Amino acid sequence: MPTPLRLGIAGLGTVGVGTVRIVQRHAQMLAARAGQAIEITAVSARSRNKDRGVQLDGYAWEDDPVALAMREDVDVFVELIGGEDGPAKDAVEAAVSAGKDVVTANKALLAMHGQALAEAAEAKGVTLRYEAAVAGGIPVIKALTEGLAGNEITRVMGVMNGTCNYILTRMQSAGLDYTTVFKECEELGYLEADPTLDVGGIDAGHKLALLAAIAFGTKVDYGALTIEGIEQITIEDIEQAADMGYRIKLLGVAQKSGNGLEARMTPCLVPESSPLGQLEGPTNMVVLEGDAVGQIVLRGAGAGEGPTASAVIADVCDLARGIRLPVFGVAAKALETPKENAVETPSAYYLRMELFDKPGALARIAAVLGDSGVSIDRMRQYGHSAETAPVLIVTHKAARDALDTALSAMRQTGVVASAPVALRIEDI
Amino acid sequence: MPTPLRLGIAGLGTVGVGTVRIVQRHAQMLAARAGQAIEITAVSARSRNKDRGVQLDGYAWEDDPVALAMREDVDVFVELIGGEDGPAKDAVEAAVSAGKDVVTANKALLAMHGQALAEAAEAKGVTLRYEAAVAGGIPVIKALTEGLAGNEITRVMGVMNGTCNYILTRMQSAGLDYTTVFKECEELGYLEADPTLDVGGIDAGHKLALLAAIAFGTKVDYGALTIEGIEQITIEDIEQAADMGYRIKLLGVAQKSGNGLEARMTPCLVPESSPLGQLEGPTNMVVLEGDAVGQIVLRGAGAGEGPTASAVIADVCDLARGIRLPVFGVAAKALETPKENAVETPSAYYLRMELFDKPGALARIAAVLGDSGVSIDRMRQYGHSAETAPVLIVTHKAARDALDTALSAMRQTGVVASAPVALRIEDI
Repeated sequence: MPTPLRLGIAGLGTVGVGTVRIVQRHAQMLAARAGQAIEITAVSARSRNKDRGVQLDGYAWEDDPVALAMREDVDVFVELIGGEDGPAKDAVEAAVSAGKDVVTANKALLAMHGQALAEAAEAKGVTLRYEAAVAGGIPVIKALTEGLAGNEITRVMGVMNGTCNYILTRMQSAGLDYTTVFKECEELGYLEADPTLDVGGIDAGHKLALLAAIAFGTKVDYGALTIEGIEQITIEDIEQAADMGYRIKLLGVAQKSGNGLEARMTPCLVPESSPLGQLEGPTNMVVLEGDAVGQIVLRGAGAGEGPTASAVIADVCDLARGIRLPVFGVAAKALETPKENAVETPSAYYLRMELFDKPGALARIAAVLGDSGVSIDRMRQYGHSAETAPVLIVTHKAARDALDTALSAMRQTGVVASAPVALRIEDI
Repeated sequence: MPTPLRLGIAGLGTVGVGTVRIVQRHAQMLAARAGQAIEITAVSARSRNKDRGVQLDGYAWEDDPVALAMREDVDVFVELIGGEDGPAKDAVEAAVSAGKDVVTANKALLAMHGQALAEAAEAKGVTLRYEAAVAGGIPVIKALTEGLAGNEITRVMGVMNGTCNYILTRMQSAGLDYTTVFKECEELGYLEADPTLDVGGIDAGHKLALLAAIAFGTKVDYGALTIEGIEQITIEDIEQAADMGYRIKLLGVAQKSGNGLEARMTPCLVPESSPLGQLEGPTNMVVLEGDAVGQIVLRGAGAGEGPTASAVIADVCDLARGIRLPVFGVAAKALETPKENAVETPSAYYLRMELFDKPGALARIAAVLGDSGVSIDRMRQYGHSAETAPVLIVTHKAARDALDTALSAMRQTGVVASAPVALRIEDI
């Protein structure tokens, strides 16, 4: 048996501790599978004296993750600190410069600096892996990069923020409004320190940016994504959607659109009978579509100690087994920049708005839509408060620019009490 | 760019032609992903002159797949002939002996001869890959061997014969009996030449045997599986199960049981709200459970030209990328033989039987179950013909041997008109 593969682990939060636990618990199994022993030689975290419920005595300690990344006795630097800049980025860059392979769970770092890191890694001949950064324990990076390597990918979709899916399904099952469920999540510790990362779609957007780069061979470009959170979704939206046979999901979609790449992380309506529609609670789901394979659906825990550490260890085992692929599946320099700004593919839309309770208000809205070339499939005015009446409209398939024209014209009619909510009804 | 990877493809049926098509259509994409061009140098099939709708002129032709396997200008032998023995086996053995890597879609060959082939391949330092052999386009071998390498696998489950799932869901949705739907499938060409391979559970059993070997680090042992087909399932079973919130699936389950390995491919009841319960039509689904990752569900097309060829090409790309793992994830010689015969884990059971319409018949059956230590959760006698009355029983969790004792005692009471049907209600 060859010499052990030596890990330096920076960051001993939930995922770091989970990773240490697997290495300790399954030493023999990992050695048999990886073809060499997997050992931890050194660790780093902010506080040395915290009790983490795991034995760290046999490992060297570094206060500074950069120092850890450069240690002679570390073959693979495992970055579990998090954050798009700061110590995580410094340490990953230091590891790459020092010729170490890197395993990370850091979606923000890769979404913002993935191209530069990929180029640096390939220039140094080292490998950078990040299965844990997308959809936790689901081996989706591997499925896309390797399992579907024979396919031109046509579309990637995913529910990749468990907290958002928990909120949306809890609202529906308990009939509660957004604010109430959001507070429940705060109390249960389900939210990031900055909850906008979750409910604003940013965390899920980071993940989608990575999948899109792999799927379409493009430079990772988080800034090009359209991102909307779930803060505007009301219990009425959820109930009305259900009434029409849909569920509302914070859904990421990436697909080629002409010479551009369309990538959105937005609340969408999906058929309740589809795998995405049936996804309840904090579970993640990724849908991969390829020209040969058709549709592949992957489902599993998107966060938590065990699932995320499982993905970290899978990357480590791959390195031990000699699996060395370019960071985004093809050489970093071969990744393309889309030639044009993506135009959203046409879609049916669900619209909700509050109209002032004046004669002719509904007719004005209908006229505005018609003038913009957006045709109405269904329209419904339901129970209303003193001064305004909520109105729901489902459109036929419409171009996004026609819809935007209509939405902007609506606001000038004087009959709309607040900015209309517009959600795509996604074809799946 | 290095020299091309040269394929020799034996077998030009649906999957072979699909593989040729992907290589031709996506030459540039494959080269970028694989790091070297993928080329076909030679092909082989039974009939040279058949029009297969694909251009084969540039490739050398071999009538004999063994000759193809040994050609100097072939680096990877792609076996798409099928069959557990005969030319497929001869050619794979010849390729291994000649020091070629092998990619195959042949589940029967590997289920019957996997251990010997793995040992031969490892002795020769060549790699044998078979992603296409299990669940078509779903990258399940990769997910299990690599993606979940950090997990002790606790259970593997799968619906892996699309025809059986089509039959069972079609019976339910159309209210048709088994024989009628079976005939429909025959007319549609959905069945293997020997339909027992499908409806008898053999094809799905081959796939389960392969997954079990990888999951539990055991020698592949098809003979140790418990296999039952779907021929006994009636429309009444399906409707009664639905009435209780279940669906009937031909479900493969493999799990450790003491020092043994329990592996069954049998019709089971699963909750209709579970991912397996919601699976309709010919789609396949595999559920992988690990101690760290929890439950991962993979869903996709289990057969057909595109999906199966997608898996073949994924294996080819892995070889080009230098991914070289042992056939069953760990060295063939390290694979274990289970120490004891597996005992089925206890389960609730669904029982259906025809009782002669005599006073006290139902009481006799209830007494027999009680005497064997099997307690009854629900019991139901429904609409009956002239001489016999159908009876349904759902038991509480019971040991298999207690149930078998009861089933055998029932047949001796003289009140049972035919052998009772007993289906597990699987905990998922």
